[in-house]
Order: sequence, then C-alpha cells, then structure tokens
Amino acid sequence: MISERLKKQIQFIVEVDKIKNIFRRSKIHDGSRRENDAEHSWHLALMAFLLSEYSNENIDVHKVMKMCIIHDIVEIDAGDTFCYDVKGNLDKQEREQKAADRIFGLLPEDQAAELRELWEEFDAMETPEAKYAAALDRLQPILLNYLNKGGTWQEHNVKKEQVIKRICKIEECAPELWEFLSWLIDDAVAKGYLADK
Amino acid sequence: MISERLKKQIQFIVEVDKIKNIFRRSKIHDGSRRENDAEHSWHLALMAFLLSEYSNENIDVHKVMKMCIIHDIVEIDAGDTFCYDVKGNLDKQEREQKAADRIFGLLPEDQAAELRELWEEFDAMETPEAKYAAALDRLQPILLNYLNKGGTWQEHNVKKEQVIKRICKIEECAPELWEFLSWLIDDAVAKGYLADK
Repeated sequence: MISERLKKQIQFIVEVDKIKNIFRRSKIHDGSRRENDAEHSWHLALMAFLLSEYSNENIDVHKVMKMCIIHDIVEIDAGDTFCYDVKGNLDKQEREQKAADRIFGLLPEDQAAELRELWEEFDAMETPEAKYAAALDRLQPILLNYLNKGGTWQEHNVKKEQVIKRICKIEECAPELWEFLSWLIDDAVAKGYLADK
Repeated sequence: MISERLKKQIQFIVEVDKIKNIFRRSKIHDGSRRENDAEHSWHLALMAFLLSEYSNENIDVHKVMKMCIIHDIVEIDAGDTFCYDVKGNLDKQEREQKAADRIFGLLPEDQAAELRELWEEFDAMETPEAKYAAALDRLQPILLNYLNKGGTWQEHNVKKEQVIKRICKIEECAPELWEFLSWLIDDAVAKGYLADK
C-alpha cells in the first residue's frame, strides 16, 4: 500500500520537473544557451554553503539552501520575469501567488505550508536568510553576464546604475561580496561589457 | 581588496558552471532532451528534504542536501558514466579521483577538504546520509524513465532484474520508498516500459 502522503509527494516531485523547461535571460558560462531555473537554483544552493561566511548576520544555512532550491518553482506557471522588465513586474506578484497556490498545494498540507512560507520569506527579503539568498540570486547572473562579456546587459541595454540599484542591499548584508561585485561591475564597464550611462 | 580566499571560491563557483553541459542518459519529463547534472542535482536536493521522513535512520538532512548538490561535480572532468555500462565503470573511480583533485582543489583548503569528504562519503554509501542520498539518486531517474514510457531502459535494453539489483539497498534504508519503487517497476513492466526478462 502506497500512502496518500507519499503519492502527493511524488506527484509534486514529478510536477516540478517542468522547472527544467523554464528558461531565464542569462546564458551559461560559454554562451551556448540560456540557463534554466533548475540549473540556476542548483548554483545558488551551492553558493549558499560556500559563501555563508560573508553574511554579516548569523544565518541558518540549511534554511537558505532550501529557499534557493524552491525559490523559482512558482515560475513553472508564472514564467520567468526579467528583473529589468517594468511592465512584466506589474502583475508578477499576482501570477506567482496563484502559481504557489496550485503547485505547493500538490504537497501534503504540512509540507505545502512549509514551502509556501519559505518562498514568501525569500520573496519578502526581510530576514537574514532571505537577504543573503537574495544577494546570491543577484550575484550569480552577474557572474554569468561577466563570463559572457555582457550577456543580458548588452541584449537589453542595461546600464551600470540599474545593476547597482538592484544589488545595493548586498552592501548591508554581505559587505565583502559587495566589494567584490563593485570591483566586477567596474571592470565590466572598463572592458565594455556594461554601459556606464 | 578582494581576499585570496574569496577569489578561490568565485573561481570554483565559475568553474562548476560547466556541470550544466554534462548530460546524463535520462531525459526530462517530456522526453524533449537529456537531463544535465545541475538539474539532476537540484532535483535530488529537493527530494532530500521532502522525503527525509522515509529514511529509517536519523539523518542530517542539511548534509544530505550538500551531498546531493556536489555529488556529480567530478563529472565535469570524468564525464557521466551510465550505471549499466560495465566497461565505463571499470576506470570510473580513477577518472573521478583525478577530477576531484583538480576541481575541489580550486577551493580554499578547508572547503576543498569538506567537499572532498562529502563526495567520498556519498560515494562509499556507508553512512545513513550517503545511503539515503544514493536511494534518491536511484529513485529520480526511475521516475523519469517511467514518465518517458521506458526511456533509457528501452534505449539500452535494460531488464527488470538489472534495475532491481541497482536499487535493492533502498529496501533496507527506506522501506516505504522501496515499496513504492517495487510497485512502479512492476507497473512499468505491465505497461511494456521495462522488459521483464
């Protein structure tokens, strides 16, 4: 006898395989194709434990890893919204809430609630764990854009000021990562990967 | 000033992006393409915390998640070895040890040692965490083969007996997952996805 609980868990695990078909704007290191949400989330989870020493607040790294793993699952229904897409970001919240209802709702009640809370905590960017996870979520595509000599910055005519605005909170939560990113962004401008103005 | 430590960590984080180009035999749910190691590792890390209640020993789920995230990094150099490939498995260990030396060696010494130990623990399949992670590593492609109505089983003429042999340790470490897998495999045979003999 397979329990109803396990059936629900397996149904969820199978459903979220669809995240492998949700493509982001960023390309992987060699520029050969866009990165998908599963790959991006894997990368963040790895960074979460390798870079945890740079968070200036004590963080529960296990919780951050869980956040990283599940933070983009809603995009299976809601799609990936490019961070510099002003129009797309207007109804992002509504689309994502509906997606969270359906997808997390496949799980047994306790786990549905746990994942929903983790995702909402990530999204609100208020707790130390959520701030640190958000920092990684910003750092990772910047590394990819740098490796791609501009990547989405050039494709979408993004300026240094917009990148800085999006990452300014990292200065508070992870000063050493901020310092590294400031250097990287200046170097990207110097190399012509990112427009200064 | 960017510290030497952070430089090494970033160098590693960038290097392992290559795992997104290491393709496995299994196809994703819709059969549209092969799955890569980053996606597979993401899926295992998610399953690790959703299915932890089925481990019959107390496990450190955080450690299992870390194992799942890093377990295939050596394949960047060593390539993916199909589990039913007898010849390819002969020199697998040597190729992977060499890969581990190079890739984990990019990290600061303490983290290189941590990841190396995690990977060796996973590979030895002796601790409760490693046994549970190995169970997930076997369960996940079986789900994908089932969704693909046979997938790699049919492509490589794999028989029920071979699948059972590969997963028999799950019975001991996660009996309820074993029961589910037994049902799934019998159903796959009944549906003609997997050859009985």
